[in-house]
Amino acid sequence: MTEALGDEMWPEVQPETARRLMAAAVDAFAERGYHATTTRDIATAAGMSSAALYVHFPSKAAVLFAISHSGHQRSLQLVAEVVGRDAPPVERMQELVRNFVAWHAKRHRVARIVQYELPALSEADYRVVAELRRRTERLVRDLITEGVALGQFTAPDVRIAARAVLSLGVDVARWYTEGSKPSPAALGRQYADLVLRMLGAG
Amino acid sequence: MTEALGDEMWPEVQPETARRLMAAAVDAFAERGYHATTTRDIATAAGMSSAALYVHFPSKAAVLFAISHSGHQRSLQLVAEVVGRDAPPVERMQELVRNFVAWHAKRHRVARIVQYELPALSEADYRVVAELRRRTERLVRDLITEGVALGQFTAPDVRIAARAVLSLGVDVARWYTEGSKPSPAALGRQYADLVLRMLGAG
Repeated sequence: MTEALGDEMWPEVQPETARRLMAAAVDAFAERGYHATTTRDIATAAGMSSAALYVHFPSKAAVLFAISHSGHQRSLQLVAEVVGRDAPPVERMQELVRNFVAWHAKRHRVARIVQYELPALSEADYRVVAELRRRTERLVRDLITEGVALGQFTAPDVRIAARAVLSLGVDVARWYTEGSKPSPAALGRQYADLVLRMLGAG
Repeated sequence: MTEALGDEMWPEVQPETARRLMAAAVDAFAERGYHATTTRDIATAAGMSSAALYVHFPSKAAVLFAISHSGHQRSLQLVAEVVGRDAPPVERMQELVRNFVAWHAKRHRVARIVQYELPALSEADYRVVAELRRRTERLVRDLITEGVALGQFTAPDVRIAARAVLSLGVDVARWYTEGSKPSPAALGRQYADLVLRMLGAG
């Protein structure tokens, strides 16, 4: 389970051992929080020694940053990929919300670390992910602005509307569990419809 | 600051020393997470000895439960008070979202503990707050159902719509900080408008 998650979540991370450590860290952080987790906890859960962990990551903070950075990049890519398409804003927003919500439902454990452990990042690490967050928000704002200009959306405050769209998706990671219904894909479709209505395009 | 928060947040908790400990615990949990916080950390932050803490709370878990239980009761009361009014569903939903969102913005530090430390509660404690959460959700679903019956709202899936309404409010606690704009009250008004549109009553 843990190894499979690592391979699916972080195919770009090499070698496989580093992915395994990140997946073990997700489990440990989820169970007892970042601050109460030790590098030994992570290493043990991955079936390694602490020394073996240090070959791949200089510290526990570096493992957290790897998880957080990768998660934020994934979000940004997902949003950028849809916003960049050649389609009406309504269609792109629908697809964006579907994908964003489904990801946060399916990957709720990783997403919780990414979203809730921001205060645990060092200042330098935080600046890196904060920039990715700003770019993600800007893309959503730009899409809403474009839709408003074309008369497809109405939004009294584009900044607040963009925040609400992303917020709905992010919060799915808080309450969604393995046993939740509907499926990630179905939830994504339903939330997309709610968002379009919120933007006056229902 | 800490004492003032205690007095305003938990006027029902007696004596004042217990409120002071709860406020100190909110600070400590927010800073390093529940698991990495010790009873000594909480006592020291409240200017007391660990022994003095045990006079009021048998354990760190009991302090967390007091904060979580009080927060969940506050949410339920806030929702029940508005839903029980004699007014059209649209007006009640508007007021509900205004109050719920403003509370999560103004009290974001406490709300984060209440929302994110659920897995740290004992099974027995969790059952108590889970029941309060169910009742809160049921009230919101009932209000939407009533609005649909009167033709004021449209909602393909009342359960999902109620979840989205509460989710938008809860997630405010994640991103809202002291320096955030707009004010809690203004954000509440804007989110209320977005929710009404989401429910087809914009």
